[in-house]
Amino acid sequence: MTLMQEKVNQAIEILKEQQTDLWLTFVRETSGVRDPMLDFLIGPNDLTWPSALILTRNGEKIAIVGNLEKDALSRTNVFDTLIGYDTAVSGPLRDTITRLDPNQIAVNTSRNNVHADGLTHAMYEILCDYLKDTPYADRLVSAEPIINAMRGRKTQEELERIRKAVEITDEIYKKTFDFIKVGMTEIQIGEYMHRLAQEYSVGLAWPAENCPAVNSGPNSPVGHNGPTDIKVEPGHIIHFDFGVKYKDYCSDIQRLVYVLRDGETEAPPEVQRGFITIRTAIEKSREAMKPGSIGNSIDVIAREILVDAGYPEYQHALGHQLGRVAHDGGALLGPLWEKYGDDPKLELEVGQVFTIEPGLAVPNYGYVALEEDVIMTENGAEYIGEPQRELIFIKG
Amino acid sequence: MTLMQEKVNQAIEILKEQQTDLWLTFVRETSGVRDPMLDFLIGPNDLTWPSALILTRNGEKIAIVGNLEKDALSRTNVFDTLIGYDTAVSGPLRDTITRLDPNQIAVNTSRNNVHADGLTHAMYEILCDYLKDTPYADRLVSAEPIINAMRGRKTQEELERIRKAVEITDEIYKKTFDFIKVGMTEIQIGEYMHRLAQEYSVGLAWPAENCPAVNSGPNSPVGHNGPTDIKVEPGHIIHFDFGVKYKDYCSDIQRLVYVLRDGETEAPPEVQRGFITIRTAIEKSREAMKPGSIGNSIDVIAREILVDAGYPEYQHALGHQLGRVAHDGGALLGPLWEKYGDDPKLELEVGQVFTIEPGLAVPNYGYVALEEDVIMTENGAEYIGEPQRELIFIKG
Repeated sequence: MTLMQEKVNQAIEILKEQQTDLWLTFVRETSGVRDPMLDFLIGPNDLTWPSALILTRNGEKIAIVGNLEKDALSRTNVFDTLIGYDTAVSGPLRDTITRLDPNQIAVNTSRNNVHADGLTHAMYEILCDYLKDTPYADRLVSAEPIINAMRGRKTQEELERIRKAVEITDEIYKKTFDFIKVGMTEIQIGEYMHRLAQEYSVGLAWPAENCPAVNSGPNSPVGHNGPTDIKVEPGHIIHFDFGVKYKDYCSDIQRLVYVLRDGETEAPPEVQRGFITIRTAIEKSREAMKPGSIGNSIDVIAREILVDAGYPEYQHALGHQLGRVAHDGGALLGPLWEKYGDDPKLELEVGQVFTIEPGLAVPNYGYVALEEDVIMTENGAEYIGEPQRELIFIKG
Repeated sequence: MTLMQEKVNQAIEILKEQQTDLWLTFVRETSGVRDPMLDFLIGPNDLTWPSALILTRNGEKIAIVGNLEKDALSRTNVFDTLIGYDTAVSGPLRDTITRLDPNQIAVNTSRNNVHADGLTHAMYEILCDYLKDTPYADRLVSAEPIINAMRGRKTQEELERIRKAVEITDEIYKKTFDFIKVGMTEIQIGEYMHRLAQEYSVGLAWPAENCPAVNSGPNSPVGHNGPTDIKVEPGHIIHFDFGVKYKDYCSDIQRLVYVLRDGETEAPPEVQRGFITIRTAIEKSREAMKPGSIGNSIDVIAREILVDAGYPEYQHALGHQLGRVAHDGGALLGPLWEKYGDDPKLELEVGQVFTIEPGLAVPNYGYVALEEDVIMTENGAEYIGEPQRELIFIKG
């Protein structure tokens, strides 16, 4: 069974569990706007004309697409029923929905999870128009709970791909740490990591411009930034944020290096203290992650550890889910801020993969943050790969 | 000036011309759902948190983004005012719109042009919520006319990139025609073209699965399909559909080859007749394309030529615009079918690049279609690159 077939079957099980009759992904010209769920439903293909991809609680798998795209779609062996059309999708769509007579039609709209929000406003209006003289226009509901479950609950195959992505990331980091010398620029280090990714034949987990982020010393702009021409100097913390994409699945890992100054054999106390605080925050939040925990309650733990130690709050979430994209959606280890919607209020589930990534600044030295990837099991969160437990030193 | 800066300045001129006060692109987590206009506004970067990109008729260029993404955005030198926030975009967004006090707020929603339809339904609802106690919630209009003009009117730099993409496509075709031998599969030919694209360091204009399309003989599935294991045989028409992406700009070209049978020195009469009909339809429709023509009127010309010659109507548009994507939006040389919305009713403008691509089947031989790329000038449509004027023969 292909991964797409496996995920579509999982979606049907989720429809049963959530008692939702029908899930409709309604798209057009996906080279322009691509619903994120298409990766699970049609793979890397595009659909040119208005198309309806329907899964039902009874196990039906129906695609209504332009006739010129039927053959390509049939080759994916995902849909049992392929309905082609030449000029107008509205007729076959209305007929199909009338035949299925669903009590709920879940569509890809969500205020919280962007990956459940692929339906554009105009496509929503067009859909309502097509259904306006039927009983079904009033039965539209958000597919957010279906998509949260489907993207969150990793299958064995998905998890293996993420494990491999993490393993490769770890190897690239090790080679990079051996490569770094005082006087190199952040950009040179970033380029070396790009070359290594190519050697491993993997993609990057987010756009190359800021994957990796490389921050050497206190003056490097932290956040979603690319490397600059700042040079590595003794006394710098070097902070990395990097991830690769292996067979469509991502890793997302932050690492820390300290560049020893003349005579130093370890990092200065304030750097050590920052490192230990971050390590502790990660370990304590990981230990608290159990199936059924609320994401926000985990963010609170890490946030308090930093604040209690006298550091300011990090201005982002403690961790996000990881999957086909580095920032996958649904339950979030995040604060209750507007920008995160309701995602931090959701429960953690077995099979979800999260990052844990608190951060703090150490004045005069640089940015101290680590990011570990964990998988939710019945017993709680387990590290994928080896976490960074000690500062790594580079000789100045 | 970078291409992004040039296009943003062009957008401001279009706002003046269309007397629209403000254009707002409102997005979040663009690794999940990416508004197609972001390529022009932020390049390949992603924005993680809810972000508002504002251009005004008075020439203001304002970005409201998460603080952690301000530095990366400032490096693009596109926006004059960067407003950062930590937890909630709603406050700075409301404040900025109130200060600007626009009579119209154009947002990226369009029933016709998918590239003007990047605003999701939930983001539209969120925006309305943010503006609900202001006079501005009722001032939302569609940015479709702005985006149609901006994507359609190619600058010199954009046109040069498309020209280069067409040139490279032509070279790849020539090498491929020299490479083809009887007995090769469509897949082998497709793989060879992929290797050539790599040698030329260009991307593909649409997903690799069906770029190129290679259809050898009468039994190959035509449409948006990838190559199959059907083998090239004497008496086959081989039809190609292929395009490359050079510096983010696309070509999209169809070509025809005929595989001579023992003793043949030219193609059989029905193949020749099909080829001439297609050539004529392309040439006549190109000649009719003038600034101000309605797209549909051009489709009608080619469609009638085919029907008058006894062939069935092609089940797609005669031609679409070409730009950063192979199927760029706005004015379309298309029939008035539901699936094309109002795009075929729009006027042609100077600076637009179109494909012209009628097609027909010749029973027992294969699919006959050509696709040429043309640029709209004051005097009408001019070919970009050399059109295919004669059938190309391969010895069987």
